[in-house]
Amino acid sequence: MAQLNDHYLKLTAGYLFPEIGRRVNAFAEANPDAPIIKLGIGDVTEPLPPAIVEAMHTAVDEMATLNGFHGYGPEQGYGFLRELIAEHDFRARGCEIEPDEIFVSDGSKCDTGNFLDILGPGNTIAVADPVYPVYVDTNVMVGNTGFANSAGEYDGLVYLRSTVENAFTPDLPDHPVDIIYLCYPNNPTGATASKEYLQRWVEFGHKHGSLILFDAAYQAFIQDPDIPRSIYEIDGARDVAVEFRSFSKNAGFTGTRCAFTVVPKTVTGRAKDGKKHALHGLWNRRHCTKFNGVSYIVQRGAEAAYSDAGRQQVQALVDFYMVNAAIIRKNLTELGLAVYGGENAPYVWLQAPNGMSSWDLFDKLLDETHVVGTPGSGFGTAGEGFFRLSSFNTRANVEEAMRRLRENLSLTELA
Amino acid sequence: MAQLNDHYLKLTAGYLFPEIGRRVNAFAEANPDAPIIKLGIGDVTEPLPPAIVEAMHTAVDEMATLNGFHGYGPEQGYGFLRELIAEHDFRARGCEIEPDEIFVSDGSKCDTGNFLDILGPGNTIAVADPVYPVYVDTNVMVGNTGFANSAGEYDGLVYLRSTVENAFTPDLPDHPVDIIYLCYPNNPTGATASKEYLQRWVEFGHKHGSLILFDAAYQAFIQDPDIPRSIYEIDGARDVAVEFRSFSKNAGFTGTRCAFTVVPKTVTGRAKDGKKHALHGLWNRRHCTKFNGVSYIVQRGAEAAYSDAGRQQVQALVDFYMVNAAIIRKNLTELGLAVYGGENAPYVWLQAPNGMSSWDLFDKLLDETHVVGTPGSGFGTAGEGFFRLSSFNTRANVEEAMRRLRENLSLTELA
Repeated sequence: MAQLNDHYLKLTAGYLFPEIGRRVNAFAEANPDAPIIKLGIGDVTEPLPPAIVEAMHTAVDEMATLNGFHGYGPEQGYGFLRELIAEHDFRARGCEIEPDEIFVSDGSKCDTGNFLDILGPGNTIAVADPVYPVYVDTNVMVGNTGFANSAGEYDGLVYLRSTVENAFTPDLPDHPVDIIYLCYPNNPTGATASKEYLQRWVEFGHKHGSLILFDAAYQAFIQDPDIPRSIYEIDGARDVAVEFRSFSKNAGFTGTRCAFTVVPKTVTGRAKDGKKHALHGLWNRRHCTKFNGVSYIVQRGAEAAYSDAGRQQVQALVDFYMVNAAIIRKNLTELGLAVYGGENAPYVWLQAPNGMSSWDLFDKLLDETHVVGTPGSGFGTAGEGFFRLSSFNTRANVEEAMRRLRENLSLTELA
Repeated sequence: MAQLNDHYLKLTAGYLFPEIGRRVNAFAEANPDAPIIKLGIGDVTEPLPPAIVEAMHTAVDEMATLNGFHGYGPEQGYGFLRELIAEHDFRARGCEIEPDEIFVSDGSKCDTGNFLDILGPGNTIAVADPVYPVYVDTNVMVGNTGFANSAGEYDGLVYLRSTVENAFTPDLPDHPVDIIYLCYPNNPTGATASKEYLQRWVEFGHKHGSLILFDAAYQAFIQDPDIPRSIYEIDGARDVAVEFRSFSKNAGFTGTRCAFTVVPKTVTGRAKDGKKHALHGLWNRRHCTKFNGVSYIVQRGAEAAYSDAGRQQVQALVDFYMVNAAIIRKNLTELGLAVYGGENAPYVWLQAPNGMSSWDLFDKLLDETHVVGTPGSGFGTAGEGFFRLSSFNTRANVEEAMRRLRENLSLTELA
């Protein structure tokens, strides 16, 4: 009889965002006229940049002709896109990354989850807390954890606490771990990592043979030139780190779907017999066997993000959202709230007033202001008492949301 | 230290099509003027139908506006597409499939591989021989097999031999197996399965609690009205079968990327404690956690394949390729070769003359006629001595390829 993967049965509750969706839908049904403003899920709202739109129209027209038609492309992505990524995202910043170390995909969420396919059982996994839930859930699914305790923490995972005290850059573990997930600029806290901080992780990786899975989905939002945008700006990172990047948040591709993963040929993993093998070959085999490449039309759109016009337009999108982030920061700070992030990241991380819980603040804001945020506790126990607001919305909606929050929270006796 | 997935090290040689690509590229470099015609990999060549092109232009324009912009969509696919699929592909043929049992994805290759995520270790897996290599390789990757023997067959897999004698519809095993891969119309043999044959498998599934993974990627090419297009045309299949479908071969989406998988809510798997769970919930959890949905633009294109104009245009594409298949069949048959398939499938499966091996015929045809096919042995040991020709090419190329084959093979003393 067909046996299922029992590890799936360990997963607690639904994934965070479906749960938010459920509560918002229930509220909207009960209050059909309430003007809800969503600053919850990190989904962009501005139209695709004109250069990208034009490139996709051209690609659609090509697909309508015998000579311009494109069938199966290279699973790893077209050379035209991989070359541009290597040049603009890495070499231009002094990072030695070759085009054939870049694997174009349909999403970073997919890639961070799928990367576990080529890693074995028996690895000790470290994640930050709070953390993007996908890192945890995908490790549960492949059996890298035990069961969850009453706080929702899974046995076997090493949780690195991100707190106000350590500026959301947790201390390194005092024992070896095999795989470490790092995300900077951070989701959900909006914190960034300095070169010195990342250097310590790269040294840790070299010392223990650990693999760093570095999620740089929000690198485009960094304003401070001293903050690294890629882990490959750190000496030695090529030997220990894989980096995940996406067009979702900078170029507005959440509904268009294009991302990429960088697997340097120098990153290795150990087989049971002790021999080292390059992860590049294993990931390439996985990519060719279990994936068929990203839509040609979409890859032409992503290519246009690197044209002169495309780069300016993408930068304008980023700037637009960062003005939103500044508006959110300013308003919440003036209210006397403790506010973090939002300066080099699209997320603002705020402390709930008066020791209120994250979900209580969620329900209060939904009920009383019709503003949807994300409860910090949904990202982990250390997120309890915090709340994430996203800057991805129209200017008018952000300003209106802030007006409502000022009115509502000024009535709350702030600690 | 990071441990890799040792099962990947069991994989023999490269995936078939990269190996073909390597040989073709080497030949092309040595013979830059040779006019190569590719009838190897099953990749479509005709332009996208106008209705689909128009729909994608409209969707790109929507994405360029604030009100028409689409960010993250439902991971399972938009309702507009799932409804049409349920109606046209299933209900219209008497199959009880609900829209929420349909999971839209970026490819059937991805889905057949990824489906193993929700299945446990310890399942006995049956595959046909010859077989689409992805079924085998993805089972090797997750550890469902031992090592390969010198013939390339993996220990632990149950191989069901597809031969001329059984019309490429292999006998059912005389012992229980847990998971069975079936592909009809078949890749690579072009064979079809009758209702009676599939009924026997569905009964086998009921008797042993087995799961049937039914790959119907080529259903649109069926000409004979008595041949089932979906396994759900068989009574009881809803309890034991998952079906994989794609827009790749009918609507020409190999480079555009859209497919779907049907997981009826009544299909179950057994947990270690013996309890049954619906696979629908597990697959939904996987889809939401490790996938972010198909590009909105592409889903609008797929939707247009179901409009009146779209359906006519898609049918015209299928008809075009089936004329190619008939031309290939006719020419090879006139040469005195034993020819199979090509009547309800885009693939023609021929026996190499004079006991020649599959790769010898591949090299001979590449060298002497510059026509690329696919060696049958690449699909499994029972494929040795056979050769697959695809009807996916322009009419002129198919006719020219046949002219060259007639000239070349008529010089070969046929058995």
